[in-house]
Amino acid sequence: MGNYEERIRNEQLRDRVVTAEEAASWIENGMTLGLSGFTRAGDVKAVPFALVNRVREEENFKVNVYTGASLGSDVDKLFAEAGILDKRLPFQADPTMRKGINKGDFLFVDQHLSHTSELIRSNVMNVDLAILEAVSITEDGMVIPTTSIGNSLSFALNAKSIIIELNMSQSLQLEGLHDLYEPGKQGDRLPIPLTKSKDRIGTIGIPVDMNKIRGIVFTDQLDSPSTIVPPDEDTAIMAGHLIDFLRQEVEVGRLTNKLAPLQSGIGSVANAVLHGMLDSDFEGLEVYSEVLQDAVFDLMDAGKVDFASCCSITLSEEKMKTVFANFDQYRDKLLMRPQEISNHPEIIRRLGLISINTALEFDIYGNVNSTHVLGSKMMNGIGGSGDFARNARLAIFVTKSIAKDGAISSIVPFVSHVDHTEHDVDVVVTEQGYADLRGLAPRERVELIIQNCAHPMYRKQLLAYYEEAKTRGGQTPHILEKALSWHINFAQNGTMLEKVEELV
Amino acid sequence: MGNYEERIRNEQLRDRVVTAEEAASWIENGMTLGLSGFTRAGDVKAVPFALVNRVREEENFKVNVYTGASLGSDVDKLFAEAGILDKRLPFQADPTMRKGINKGDFLFVDQHLSHTSELIRSNVMNVDLAILEAVSITEDGMVIPTTSIGNSLSFALNAKSIIIELNMSQSLQLEGLHDLYEPGKQGDRLPIPLTKSKDRIGTIGIPVDMNKIRGIVFTDQLDSPSTIVPPDEDTAIMAGHLIDFLRQEVEVGRLTNKLAPLQSGIGSVANAVLHGMLDSDFEGLEVYSEVLQDAVFDLMDAGKVDFASCCSITLSEEKMKTVFANFDQYRDKLLMRPQEISNHPEIIRRLGLISINTALEFDIYGNVNSTHVLGSKMMNGIGGSGDFARNARLAIFVTKSIAKDGAISSIVPFVSHVDHTEHDVDVVVTEQGYADLRGLAPRERVELIIQNCAHPMYRKQLLAYYEEAKTRGGQTPHILEKALSWHINFAQNGTMLEKVEELV
Repeated sequence: MGNYEERIRNEQLRDRVVTAEEAASWIENGMTLGLSGFTRAGDVKAVPFALVNRVREEENFKVNVYTGASLGSDVDKLFAEAGILDKRLPFQADPTMRKGINKGDFLFVDQHLSHTSELIRSNVMNVDLAILEAVSITEDGMVIPTTSIGNSLSFALNAKSIIIELNMSQSLQLEGLHDLYEPGKQGDRLPIPLTKSKDRIGTIGIPVDMNKIRGIVFTDQLDSPSTIVPPDEDTAIMAGHLIDFLRQEVEVGRLTNKLAPLQSGIGSVANAVLHGMLDSDFEGLEVYSEVLQDAVFDLMDAGKVDFASCCSITLSEEKMKTVFANFDQYRDKLLMRPQEISNHPEIIRRLGLISINTALEFDIYGNVNSTHVLGSKMMNGIGGSGDFARNARLAIFVTKSIAKDGAISSIVPFVSHVDHTEHDVDVVVTEQGYADLRGLAPRERVELIIQNCAHPMYRKQLLAYYEEAKTRGGQTPHILEKALSWHINFAQNGTMLEKVEELV
Repeated sequence: MGNYEERIRNEQLRDRVVTAEEAASWIENGMTLGLSGFTRAGDVKAVPFALVNRVREEENFKVNVYTGASLGSDVDKLFAEAGILDKRLPFQADPTMRKGINKGDFLFVDQHLSHTSELIRSNVMNVDLAILEAVSITEDGMVIPTTSIGNSLSFALNAKSIIIELNMSQSLQLEGLHDLYEPGKQGDRLPIPLTKSKDRIGTIGIPVDMNKIRGIVFTDQLDSPSTIVPPDEDTAIMAGHLIDFLRQEVEVGRLTNKLAPLQSGIGSVANAVLHGMLDSDFEGLEVYSEVLQDAVFDLMDAGKVDFASCCSITLSEEKMKTVFANFDQYRDKLLMRPQEISNHPEIIRRLGLISINTALEFDIYGNVNSTHVLGSKMMNGIGGSGDFARNARLAIFVTKSIAKDGAISSIVPFVSHVDHTEHDVDVVVTEQGYADLRGLAPRERVELIIQNCAHPMYRKQLLAYYEEAKTRGGQTPHILEKALSWHINFAQNGTMLEKVEELV
């Protein structure tokens, strides 16, 4: 086995190596699978493929698939296409799966990413079989995750049995980077003893009951690289506005030049905004986030970021190569945690994070829609945005002010779906500017949002709505007959602009 | 001074006694006042009255009024009538004030009750003058609150100066009941060392900088009694459904007969539901809540509740008399905390509370509106419901299925305002039954909610909406043109029933 012995250091477990096909043959109709994987990193690749090959189009075969967050390697696509899903949770970001969700082909439960573990721990939801990617298994049987932790600890502790995918392409350098902490049952739980981003509070691997490990499969497929696009002009301008805002906070003494631990959501816009910090005066920064994307490593290279705690590392192909080729540079600056801990309200509030997440749209009062296109169609899911926004020191939402060449305004009178209420949204940023909503009543927010954040082509139309709404009174004035008219207009006429509607 | 020496035990402070009128004369135009008071308990009465008398209708006099939550003694009514308010936060429950808010006469910021202290501590919002009701001031200058704590600690620590109202009608027996804990600045903060409802973690009074105490006013007006109405047939039935649900949880082993610490929102419905526990098999119960209403003391008398932690005690006139006449029975079973601690996400999640709050309406997917009538008009405010629902073990919302003799259905296709998203709502209860939404996708929730919770007179109409919406697809199917039609119908025709609309 050579190399294999380095990966399975517990001798007892060495005879459990099987093929992916054999492992997949153990999966029965109706089972709930708990898979490793968070934002395309550290997901299992071989057993899901083998399962799909085995049961594709088998009419009476359905499984529930629980994960950390989104998967790479087209696993979600394959599951969706194979028609073998009953329920998927708590997050996904695959176009084919999205179509299946919105057609109602299978069920999708969109959960706060910190909540899934609680529901499993308390037996509200159960996992039959955990399938976890690992870089190695230690002498004492601890399973060392790869490039993400996600819900793997919780799956391992609560599943009836476990399959390990030992991925030979994942660097052994990852060993020692993880920090696994299990809070215990509610009511019998101690405070989570983490007071700084870099605090180590757990074990370097998942302590599993070795009897539960049913099989070990060797694999060698790398994580899918991240799909983010490089910063463009608009995202660079947005980053500039955000930095202006933060600089103001430093000037009035609410923050220092080290800011506060940063969280940044997944995706191109959030990555670009963080990237903008390269040109700022801020230094000695810390990151306490779910996902580390390229920008964080660029900030480390530039000496801006001193430490980053995360739940997964999702990099572009190029960045992945350079990071792992020079891993010693980063090792002491990184720590990976279960998503329950990276996203825990207790920690987010204690550390006082600065949280930056992407909005799909927000309304003139500051309510944010992160998930549903035109109120009905799922995009990806709420992810960790709710965990962070509710508990952060600064809950910041970013989006471009228009989409589809101006046919869509991201600022609307009334969001078609609410993920974050006005109570949870501190600052909104577009390429037009930012609006600081803290301590403001709904009526105070309107003008700020329209003037600072809406695209000029939509400002008059937004103001006209508000002026008419005000005649009806209320804490949050609305004209219910027109509240959703912008979305209806777009669905019917392909634009939110009123003029076009009048012409049609 | 006799009795007075017992109330002001610090000699240095005795010469600061002034009249309410003199204290009120220090309040200047533009100031922000931080008043004690939470749900009609422990509010200051004399200085606000004197202020209103002084400046009533003075055109150029405005103040901001921050409190714990709602005030009693008509203070909010007087402020609203006097026209001297610029901004009020974070909660209110006064009909006159509500009118003023909805007319736009002054601004109201509706905040999570655990958030206000953070905003003050971090200088996002500032308090000029704290006016706090106290039962006494100790030898070392600690201010002992009365029947609520609210945000008083935060106001005292952050205000430039402080006025104390020593209320001679508030029983000295309250001394020793309070537990004041200041978490400290975000980022430099330790875990809050509270792991059980009864843990004492702070001081028995507010440690104030004595130099900041500008005046002490003696008063003797009792708290306004609570305005809850006794349980009626419907609330008793709702309590029955809730108890059935909790009994199920015990049967499947997720809870024991002691349940988990209970939180119950303010108001008649929540009180009635808690009252229903009197007839249950549950015992050895604990309460970790904001407000203790009559029901908790009835449960203590019946030997059902062993301990109750709260932020305020708001009782009916009758109950107030018997509780204070027999205070020794209750003393060891009570603890009062700042609202930041009673409502802290860290503690709520750690203890795993069972949280029961009132909804104004909820939709077929489980989104809850707690605050806005027809999407625009403020009722009271979100209060602590968001703090609890997001972090509780069980987030339960209760409401009667219809209002105004059936003209309003509390279950609608699309809520006209969202305070709690589907991610935060575990169980909904009406007099019709309960729907357990945990782990369910939106499409799975619909039928449960309609069949178990909606009033029979609205079930067909709700199902018809959903059936039509499904033809459009989506994770959360909606017909945007009709989503708010129920509210529009009510506003125009006085009913949500479709038939009437067709006849018009």
